[in-house]
This record gives sequence, structure tokens and C-alpha cells, in this order.
Amino acid sequence: MVGLDPIYSRLPLAIRESEKLNDEFDTESAVDAIFEFSTKVLRAVAPHVAAVKLNIAFFERYYWEGIEAYYSLIEEADALGLEIIGDVKRADISHTARAYAQAHLSNPEFANMEDIVAPDAITVNPYLGIEALAPFVDVAVEQGKGLFVLVRTSNPEAASIQDFADAQGKKLYELVAQQVEELAGQEKLLGQSGYSCVGAVVGATDPQAAKRLRELMPHCLFLVPGYGTQGGTAEAAKACFKSDGTGAIVNASRSIIYAYERQEYQHMADQWENAVRQALIDMKQQLNQALRL
Amino acid sequence: MVGLDPIYSRLPLAIRESEKLNDEFDTESAVDAIFEFSTKVLRAVAPHVAAVKLNIAFFERYYWEGIEAYYSLIEEADALGLEIIGDVKRADISHTARAYAQAHLSNPEFANMEDIVAPDAITVNPYLGIEALAPFVDVAVEQGKGLFVLVRTSNPEAASIQDFADAQGKKLYELVAQQVEELAGQEKLLGQSGYSCVGAVVGATDPQAAKRLRELMPHCLFLVPGYGTQGGTAEAAKACFKSDGTGAIVNASRSIIYAYERQEYQHMADQWENAVRQALIDMKQQLNQALRL
Repeated sequence: MVGLDPIYSRLPLAIRESEKLNDEFDTESAVDAIFEFSTKVLRAVAPHVAAVKLNIAFFERYYWEGIEAYYSLIEEADALGLEIIGDVKRADISHTARAYAQAHLSNPEFANMEDIVAPDAITVNPYLGIEALAPFVDVAVEQGKGLFVLVRTSNPEAASIQDFADAQGKKLYELVAQQVEELAGQEKLLGQSGYSCVGAVVGATDPQAAKRLRELMPHCLFLVPGYGTQGGTAEAAKACFKSDGTGAIVNASRSIIYAYERQEYQHMADQWENAVRQALIDMKQQLNQALRL
Repeated sequence: MVGLDPIYSRLPLAIRESEKLNDEFDTESAVDAIFEFSTKVLRAVAPHVAAVKLNIAFFERYYWEGIEAYYSLIEEADALGLEIIGDVKRADISHTARAYAQAHLSNPEFANMEDIVAPDAITVNPYLGIEALAPFVDVAVEQGKGLFVLVRTSNPEAASIQDFADAQGKKLYELVAQQVEELAGQEKLLGQSGYSCVGAVVGATDPQAAKRLRELMPHCLFLVPGYGTQGGTAEAAKACFKSDGTGAIVNASRSIIYAYERQEYQHMADQWENAVRQALIDMKQQLNQALRL
């Protein structure tokens, strides 16, 4: 999976409007540039990946214009046959959680939003309780969509909370994993594959934790961030898969979409889409080698 | 503090456009109705409260049109002299957290967004680590704004995660509180009052937890949800205040903004704004009695 984290100042020069004095002076120009970049990335990667992840923060940053672009990109990705994960990390309670689920998982029921498609799955945060995620689960089931609950994130600062342990040495992320599995393993949430529509986010940065979590959540697909820029390796990502080679979807964002900034791909800088495509092909090869596929 | 959780189907009949067959058939009509309702609520409550809280989920539900209305309402509230809390419960890491912070705390630097004002403070989620909140803290300091970190939420499902305890009996919410206090108590984050720009969300539904948390976080203002509809009481909210009567801001949302649905205010149903105003005055009186102010 490729993640779209579009940052204006890192876009190829060919896309940034050179006449602007200040790079981000106007949201319309910035959003136009980000939209052009993102659609080109989608087209470059579509033949090579199953899914894309859109991080909504980089669109929210441009207010309502950014949000309109976010939904338009989902339409583009959908037309290219990609599965789309909305990386929104939302959480709230009861009616509020329902409102978030409608915004981010329901295809709109509004007459003026007929062409709008919501993501196939979104990320959610467990801090308010796994049972508090029920409105998200309900909407996911209604719509044939999915969730990925943050269990063990890829950032180093996460340990101070997620590694908090009880008297038996059980860590918070293991508790969350047990509760996520309890939810995910319900008959009505399982597909033909045996996997649930409720999955988990498990960083590629701690192979031992990943191994433990793979045991704890047999019904969950893992969304594996942190590969590439954040220091995750193919070996660490491997621990997120089952021995049959299923069970995880590995994401790389900045290492792919900004591949033209990387030394090994700089010779392609004037055809930046080739650099993006090549970096993705190389990443897949590394992963397949680690998984011996 | 009054919280704005606008739900179309609960708006006064006078505001809902009666000619529509389906209540929410079109986002433009729904957003217009919600905007009209919300501005009228803001004007009714402004003389009686210090702050308002806007829950962004109820605006996201209407896609980019809802987000535009969200920022317009912040402008309205700002013009009425109110402090505005954006209840967004965001969390992510590094660049992504920075993008969220820019969207939700920075007044825009874009030429075409000159009139837009961001909230004075927002709510954030601690699951990715308190240190991962650094980009939010940085933007808050740059902009003279604030954060409220979710510590103990008001919903019953929260206990299964937030009450997870270590070998010494310390609960997760106490660990989070200690880390929030460590962050909040830094000299550069303190104002003349001695309170920090980093505060905490502490539900009004568990007086014992609130008492403990008030001790653990002396530098934090508490945002206290759950009063009213969720079963919080003035006595429970009282535990969130210091003995000098400072330190907390109590929120009620649905019990105030939909007061015209409540039996005791139904005689005002045809002047719904009076019901809203009266429910707020009554709530303040109850709180002041409990606090002996």
C-alpha cells in the first residue's frame, strides 16, 4: 500500500506554480497542486498496489477546500480499482462517533453528493474504549467496509503509553489487542477469508511486538505503517504476516511518493513519476524477498 | 461552557425547511439549517458563558460544506467575544500532527482565508504518546492558544482501557495525568494565573477519579464534559475545581441546546431560544450552588 501524505513544499517543481512568491500563499493554488500531484501518483502506483492510504491531516490543513480534494481523490482512486483507506484516526462516543462514521465510511445519501465515495476502511483510536467503537463497527457492517484500530503505533514516543504494563507484565497494547480480537472475531464480522472487517494498526518498527500481536489477533488484518522513512524494515514487517503469507498490508508513504528526492532515484528527477514507480517496485521486491514469495 | 453538537433532526421545526421530503436530502439545506440554529444558540448563550465548544464531527458529517460552516461559526463566536474550543480529538505523529495543529489551531496564513479564525484551544488524544503531542504544543505556544488532552473521558466504555492498572495499582488515566502534568508544568507553558496552556479532559461522571486527577494535575485547567445528558452532576463536577473555585470549565451540550425538548422547558417550545437560555441559567445556578459561589 502507498500512503498519500502530500506536502506542498515537497512537490516536484514541475507541479508547484513557480510564479507564486510565497509557496502556500493561497489555498486554491496549493490544493490544485496537491490534487494534480496526488492523481498522478495514484495513476503511477495503481498497477502495482492493492490499496492506497490517504492521510486526511494533509487535506484538513487546507480547510474545506482540502476536504473537497480529499473526497475527489477517493473518487479517482476508486475509479482506478484501488481499495482506499482513510487514515483519519478518529474516536469519540455515541452520537459523535456515529457522525464521524457517517462522514468517513458511509457513501453519502445526499442528492448533491451522489458522486462522492467514502473510503473502504478507516483508522480509529482505542483510547475511549473498544466498545465505544460500536458506532463505527455498525456503519462498517452496514456499508461492507472496515476499520483498523490503532494498537501499536510506529512512533518511538508511543511506548510511554502503549507499553504501560499490569502486574502480570501484560502491556496496554496487548490488552487493546485482546479486546480488538474479541470484537473482530465475532461471526458476523468475518468474511470468507476468515478475516474480520475489524483490523489493527501495528507498526513495522518492533518485530517482537508484531510477532506477539500476530498471535493475539488471528482474525485481524494488520495495517503496517512505518515502513521506509520511519525506519521499519521488511524483516520487521514480516512478523505481521501469518506463515501462509496473508494477514498484513504494508504501507510506505514518503519513501515512495517523494522518491525523486532520494539519492538512488535522483537520476529520474525530471520524470518524477518514474522515480515513484521504481521505488514502489523496489519496495515490493524487498518485501517479497523477506517473505520468500 | 455550552457545547454545539448540532443534529439536523433535532433542530426546532421553525428552522428545518418543512418543504423537504427527506430531512437531510441535501447537504446545503442541512448545513444552512444547522448554521442558522448554531448562530442563534451562540447569540442566546454568549452573555452567560465564557466559552463554547464546537464538536467537529457534526460538521464533518456534511463533508466540506460542513467544514466551511464550522469555521464560519468560529468567526461568529469570536465576534461575540467567546473563547472557542474545537472538540476535534485529533492525534497523529510528527508531520501529520503538525498538519492537524495548523488546521485546527493556527489562524490561516493564506491570502484567501484572511477572515478565518481557528479555535482558541482543541482537544487531543494521548494514545500515541504525550511526547507525540509536541507539534500541537509548539503551534499552541506560537499562537497563544491551548490544548486539552483526553485523560478520563465521561463514557462508561472508557474504563476497560483507561482503568488498566500496573502492579502498584496506578491506572492508565493516572499515568496519562502524570505525563500531562509534566508537560503542562513547564515554565514556558504557564500563564499569569499559574495555569498552563495544556489542560486535560476529565469527565464529570466519576467524582473520585476527578478528585485524584485534580491533585495530579495542579497546572491544568480541566475541560469537564458529561454534565447533563450523560449523567454528570454538579457534585461530581465540583471535584474538578480547586478549593479556590478555579481550575475547571464545565461543558453541557445537548441538555442546553435542545432544552426545548425537555419537559421542564416545553412551555417555551415556540420560543426555543428562551428555553436554551433558561436551561443554561438553571445549570449555572446548580453549579454555583454546588461550588457555594
